[in-house]
Parts: sequence; C-alpha cells; structure tokens
Amino acid sequence: MELTHINAQGRAKMVDVSDKKETLREAVASGNVYMKRETLQRIKEGAIKKGDVLSVAQVAGIMASKETSDIIPMCHPIMISGCDINFNLNFDENRVEIRATVKNTGQTGVEMEALMAVTVAGLTIYDMCKAIDREMIVSDIMLMKKSGGKSGLFERKE
Amino acid sequence: MELTHINAQGRAKMVDVSDKKETLREAVASGNVYMKRETLQRIKEGAIKKGDVLSVAQVAGIMASKETSDIIPMCHPIMISGCDINFNLNFDENRVEIRATVKNTGQTGVEMEALMAVTVAGLTIYDMCKAIDREMIVSDIMLMKKSGGKSGLFERKE
Amino acid sequence: MELTHINAQGRAKMVDVSDKKETLREAVASGNVYMKRETLQRIKEGAIKKGDVLSVAQVAGIMASKETSDIIPMCHPIMISGCDINFNLNFDENRVEIRATVKNTGQTGVEMEALMAVTVAGLTIYDMCKAIDREMIVSDIMLMKKSGGKSGLFERKE
Amino acid sequence: MELTHINAQGRAKMVDVSDKKETLREAVASGNVYMKRETLQRIKEGAIKKGDVLSVAQVAGIMASKETSDIIPMCHPIMISGCDINFNLNFDENRVEIRATVKNTGQTGVEMEALMAVTVAGLTIYDMCKAIDREMIVSDIMLMKKSGGKSGLFERKE
Amino acid sequence: MELTHINAQGRAKMVDVSDKKETLREAVASGNVYMKRETLQRIKEGAIKKGDVLSVAQVAGIMASKETSDIIPMCHPIMISGCDINFNLNFDENRVEIRATVKNTGQTGVEMEALMAVTVAGLTIYDMCKAIDREMIVSDIMLMKKSGGKSGLFERKE
Amino acid sequence: MELTHINAQGRAKMVDVSDKKETLREAVASGNVYMKRETLQRIKEGAIKKGDVLSVAQVAGIMASKETSDIIPMCHPIMISGCDINFNLNFDENRVEIRATVKNTGQTGVEMEALMAVTVAGLTIYDMCKAIDREMIVSDIMLMKKSGGKSGLFERKE
Repeated sequence: MELTHINAQGRAKMVDVSDKKETLREAVASGNVYMKRETLQRIKEGAIKKGDVLSVAQVAGIMASKETSDIIPMCHPIMISGCDINFNLNFDENRVEIRATVKNTGQTGVEMEALMAVTVAGLTIYDMCKAIDREMIVSDIMLMKKSGGKSGLFERKE
Repeated sequence: MELTHINAQGRAKMVDVSDKKETLREAVASGNVYMKRETLQRIKEGAIKKGDVLSVAQVAGIMASKETSDIIPMCHPIMISGCDINFNLNFDENRVEIRATVKNTGQTGVEMEALMAVTVAGLTIYDMCKAIDREMIVSDIMLMKKSGGKSGLFERKE
Repeated sequence: MELTHINAQGRAKMVDVSDKKETLREAVASGNVYMKRETLQRIKEGAIKKGDVLSVAQVAGIMASKETSDIIPMCHPIMISGCDINFNLNFDENRVEIRATVKNTGQTGVEMEALMAVTVAGLTIYDMCKAIDREMIVSDIMLMKKSGGKSGLFERKE
Repeated sequence: MELTHINAQGRAKMVDVSDKKETLREAVASGNVYMKRETLQRIKEGAIKKGDVLSVAQVAGIMASKETSDIIPMCHPIMISGCDINFNLNFDENRVEIRATVKNTGQTGVEMEALMAVTVAGLTIYDMCKAIDREMIVSDIMLMKKSGGKSGLFERKE
Repeated sequence: MELTHINAQGRAKMVDVSDKKETLREAVASGNVYMKRETLQRIKEGAIKKGDVLSVAQVAGIMASKETSDIIPMCHPIMISGCDINFNLNFDENRVEIRATVKNTGQTGVEMEALMAVTVAGLTIYDMCKAIDREMIVSDIMLMKKSGGKSGLFERKE
Repeated sequence: MELTHINAQGRAKMVDVSDKKETLREAVASGNVYMKRETLQRIKEGAIKKGDVLSVAQVAGIMASKETSDIIPMCHPIMISGCDINFNLNFDENRVEIRATVKNTGQTGVEMEALMAVTVAGLTIYDMCKAIDREMIVSDIMLMKKSGGKSGLFERKE
C-alpha cells in the first residue's frame, strides 16, 4: 500500500479525490486528559455553574473541527454537517474522557475532523486548568469508528 | 488556588495580564505517536526523500503554534519569537517522539503554543500515514519545561 | 419547539443536517449605522472619490460573510454562491442603511452569513469614521427574508 | 478633522501609528439583543444548565475580539491583554444586554475589539435561538468608554 | 464583456454562481523565482536533506490554495479536491520554476487557487533564502490551463 | 552565510529572534500586473466609479499583509503599525504598477509583509478582471527598500 500523500517528486501533495463518490460519512474519535484528582473535582464543581470548563472545551473542539483543513496541511476542505462532543469525568482513572462524533456528505471523510475536535477540547481543558495543575497529560487520541466511503467501516476494538 | 479563567458571572473570560511584566519566556512540550512498526519503518524510509512526512509535520506544528490563540479560546494572542520541533524515531517503543520548543518575550508564556506545536505535528503524522495505519495513537502530550514569568521555572521529572 | 443547538449533556453541539436536502437558499438581512449628520455628509463626499468608506465596508462585509462559520461557533461551514451589499445614505434619519443578500445551494441556509455581512460592514463604517465620530451606533440588525429549505419562506413585515 | 484612513490616492490605508506611545488602554462597549419574552425565558432556563446559550456567546465574543484585525480591514493587529463579557437578562425590555471590556498595552486602542466582542456575542445568541425566534434584533452596539492613548478618556453619557 | 464583479451601485460584489452547473474543473498555473546562481545552488544542496526549502514551499502553497477565498475578496469558497505543486531548478535562467495543478468539482473554477499556490510557494522560497539573497524576484505568475465550466478550455500558448 | 531557517535535523524552524532589539522597521516592495491595453483602460474607467478594482485590491493587500505569518510558514507573527499601497496605471507598458510600504516596531522586519501586500493586490486585480482577460501576468515582485534592524539599510538599484 502506498503513502498516498507523496507526489512524483517525493514531496507532499493533497491527494486527488475528484473521482470519489459523495457519500454520507461519520467518524468517532476519543481521547483522555489525565490530571490530579483535585483538578478533576474542581472541574466537576465548576460544571455546576454556567460557563464551565467543559462548555468552553466543547465550543473550542467544535470550532477547531470546522477548521481542520486550515491546520492539517494535506487535509481536504470539508463541509461538516454535524459535530458533537461528549465528556465523562472518570474518577477511577482521574481523567476526563472525550469523545467526538463528526458527520459529512462528501468525497472524503471526517476522521481528522473528529481527532481535531477531541484534541483541541483536551488542550482547552489543559489551558483552563493549568493555573492549578501543570502536569495534566492529553493522551490516547485515537479513531474509534469510521463509516462511509470506499474503505468501508472501521471499528476499533476497545 | 483559583481557576483564573472564570469571571464573576461564572463564565469564561480571558484573564487580564495587563499588569504582568514583559519577560523572556520559553516552553518545551513533548508527545508521542504510537504506530505499527511497519509504519514507523515507512516514515524512516520516506525521511530519506525530500518532502517527507516529518517535514510536513514540522511545518504544520510551527504554523499551528503561531495560531494557538485563534484555536484555544482563552489564550492570549502572543508573538512567538522562535519555534523548533524535533522528532525521534523510537523503534523500541514503535513511536515517533516529538519535542517542541517555543520562545517569546511578553506578559504571558508559551506553554499552550508548545503543546499545540506537538499536537498538530502528531495529528499531521497521523493524517499522512492513515492510509496505511488507522490505529495510530497520539499520546503523552505534556509540558516538559517552562521558564520566565512570575510562576518561575517548571521542570517535569521525566 | 426545541433549542436545537443543545446536546444530551446540556452543552452546545453543531446540529446534524446530514438528512436535509440540498436546495437553493437565499437570505436578506439589514441594519443601520446612526451617526452625526456631519459624518454622514463626509461619507457622502468621500463616496465621490475612489476607495471610499463604503467600498471598504462592502469588501469587509463580503469577506466576513464567507468566514461566518469560523466566527459563529455552531454555524455550519457553507459555500456561499453569491453575496452583495447595498448602502443607502438616509439624511432624514442620519444613518447609513445596509442591506445584504447571500445565496447558497446546500443543506442549511445563509441567514447568519447575511447578518454577518451587514454587521461587519457596519463595524467597518464605524472603524473608518471613528476619528471624527465616536458616538456612532450600529443598530437594527435583523433578518428581512429567507427562502429555501424545510422551514420555507420567512418575510419580515417592515 | 480628517478621515485618517484615506491615503493620498483617495484609497483606504492602515494608519501609521509608529510614532504613538505604548500605553495601557481599555475600552468598554455594549449592545442589546431584542427578542420574544418566551425566547428570553428559554435562555434563562438554559442558563441553569451547563453549556447554555450565553456561555457559547461568551466564548464566541472573546474569540472574535482576538481576531478583530482579521475582520475589520484597516484595524491594526493588537495583542489584547484581557477580555471579559457580561450579560444581563432584562425582562422589562425583553432583551439580553451585553457589555464587553477589553484591555491592551499598545500603540493603538481596543474599541473595535470591544465592539466586535459585543457584536459576535449578539449574533451567536441569535444563531442559537433562531430555531424558535427568527425576529430577534441585534441593536444599540456602541462604545461606552475608552481610556488610554493620546485622545484621552471618552465616556458616553448613558 | 462586463466586469462581472461590479454591482449596480458600482461597488464590488461576489458574483452569483447559483445557476451554474457543478462540473469537474482543473487549473494549472506557473511562475518563477529568479535568484543568484549561488542561491539556486544552495537550494539544490538543501534539497538533498530532509525538510528542504522546496518542501516547505510546497506545504505553504498547498495550504494557501485552500485558503484562497479568505484572501482574495471576491473569490467563492471552494472545496478543492486535489492540489499538487512541482518545482524545477533551472540553472540556465537561474530560477526556480513552479507549477501548480488544482482540481475541484463545483459551480466555479480553481484558477485563483492555482495562482495562489504558485505565488505563496514563491514567496516562501523568498522568505527561506532571504538571509542570503535579498534580490530574488517572484515573477511570471500566470494561468497555463483551465478546463471545465461554461467558458470551456483555456490553454496558454507557451 | 547560513540558511537560518534550517534546524539541526535539517528541517525548517522558525528562527529565534529573542535576542534581537525592538527597532522601528520599514519595508517597501513593488510588483506589476501586465494586461491587455483594453483591460487597463477598463480599470481606469472603473476607477472613476466608487468601489473600483483598485480599491478592492488595496483592501485585499492590506488585509493579507496583516496575515502574512499565517500564510508564510517560517514568518514571525508581527504587529504591523502601518500599511499603504499605491497603484500607477502605466499605459506605456500596459501594466498596473503596485508599491506597498509597511512599518512595524519589533524584533524582526516587515519585508515579507510588504511583498505579501503587493502580491495579493496583484492577484486581486487578476481575479476581478479575469472575466475579460485571462492572460494577465503578475510579475516583478521584489523588495525595493528595507530599513531598521541589524542588517541595516537595503535599497535596490532601480
């Protein structure tokens, strides 16, 4: 199998998807932000107020998802038709679990958009809590599921 | 200690740094992209050609670092005065190790800029190799070092 | 009727429009910039020269219209297929009247794009004249008309 | 007094502020979004949940404030050092009142940044509620106060 | 023939393409960067290493191509479906020759996107070599070929 | 002399300018757009109306100048303190001559910003006239003058 992003001169190109069919596509990505138990507790408490850390992370992730092709050099511009992010505060593992779902109808899929949503949501959590916890770690960013398009269904074994 | 990003109405604000002194600041962040051994091998071989995966990831990471305040909602706009990214292909752990260093002279530091550089470099590696390996994981994104500013030196124990 | 931008966790999401049909859509928005009579007079005179205030406002409004989904968090990316802005200098009310028309063919409409065009045109007028009139007011920004899509024709009674 | 944005050829230019001193500057702007009483009530109820309409509007306004010079053609790039937005639900006038405060230290002030924060917060409220109220009006966007810089203190009589 | 970008008030508008058919379109543009022979030699030598000047120019050109409608005021937003750039080091003329090919399926073509790719690639070469050669000239930026759409095939006689 | 944009791994980096002094800097760049005599004539006539081709090119060039560091990968973010563009319609050579002057106070200069202003102004002229002349050529983009900073005064012999 070929690294499709490399052109005849050995340099990067944006892959030509002109011949691909427009289909409904969906991608799900996930990731975790590990932190001190106390930080997680603070986020939970903040979550009771309006305008909490997770609300800002949610908005940041969705906005970044729309701008994926401005940030990842060889990504095609895509008009995503829906984006949602969910958070789970896991006190057993002392982490915020992030899961993003992105949809589009187009010639190429939205896995980078889902990964971008998770990542920027994670970095935003870091940014908003860094005054109390500089050692947070954004981790485990991975594709969980991808459907639509020629390559068909991908589902990660959890 | 307070979550400084929250205003009197309980909503997010951009922290006022007007009173902080302009000092030289530096931040170092790191992260890993785990992948199949074969994928790592392919990146290594590609690295021999001009325009390889890591060159594109390098450019993407540096450009994203400059746009951090457009992506992370409560980040202050910052004029970074230098940015570099280094990669290490670790065949023992089957991962690309990424380390970014960012500098600025200003009222607030560049840790988010360094984390952004690492993250986007990692996602770009994913994007360029995803045709041959959908199970790559971008992980372990963390601050390694931070100097300058009121809070002083932070160094992570590795 | 539901606030469709809110997800199951009570946070904002980008509404899923995957199932909506692509139709031709058009939106018209309007707004006013109130100012001193003298300022309005100056704009009028400037309008005789090439490169007047309204030309810059026109360009700004059209460019902002294209970037609406980068600015309004839950807006879908849209490829607008046409945008025009008209200005009327109303000396009875001492205001510049702005009206923008935006078209697209897609799964969701362009009312935010039309409102953004009007708003940014108005703010640009403010910016270019503020040296002589700091008390200008950008006001009355509203949707006048909207056609295409499931919700059908909306027309504001003037 | 001259329209300072016009060059010798009668076209727009970005005013040269090289000779101006760096001072601490602050600007306050305000605006209103008029709506049906029922819509206002819904926002209020939503405000009890995490991730309400006003939280998203807050994030949108702050982010837009940072990008003002990308949107308003003749605005200088500015590194704002703080930004906050407050909302008041006024049931007597059936409107959301928005007030933004922006600070910077620089050669030119932040009144456009404050106006942009108010405006985009207002448009975001419109966007998130438009499914239940298409007749909302974003209005009364004006500068309330401006301090710092050569032109000195400006305060609007309320 | 009319200057289609001018509206009834004599100001610029974004041309309405709502009625145009979606067709496969392609555009090829070219340009040259003239420089000292020594600079060209240095680029060639750098090209042997990973991450050379031309790799960065390639990434910059492709990314700018995607953002054409954010930069050129009356350009329609376009979802390009492929972009590639080729370089030729011409030691007879002491220049780098740049050629970009862009494709899309849409209501309007990609000639501006191809010209943007060439131009930004050229400026990036300038930027990366300017420490050793301030007299480089970016020149001869022109459309070579354009196919698809109502106006049919355009081919420049070389 | 070294290609300062290359790091120890042979990849691009953003040069560290932390140690450079903040000085007042200015750069002047120029370029030409060659076209049919008829096209030049049309631009001249349009120039009499408000909202002509050159006004739009002026706004586009100034806005692009501000966004140079978002477009050219290794450029430092810069807060330009002034930008102006002048046009000359040269009927002897059938070209529009463009000249941009950019100023800033900072650790690094604005030559890329001046070149970007000229280039985007040129491409905008192309875009707005392409319906009547596809063979226009944007050419001769070069630095004319540069002052301030360690490397001192550069002036091109015309």
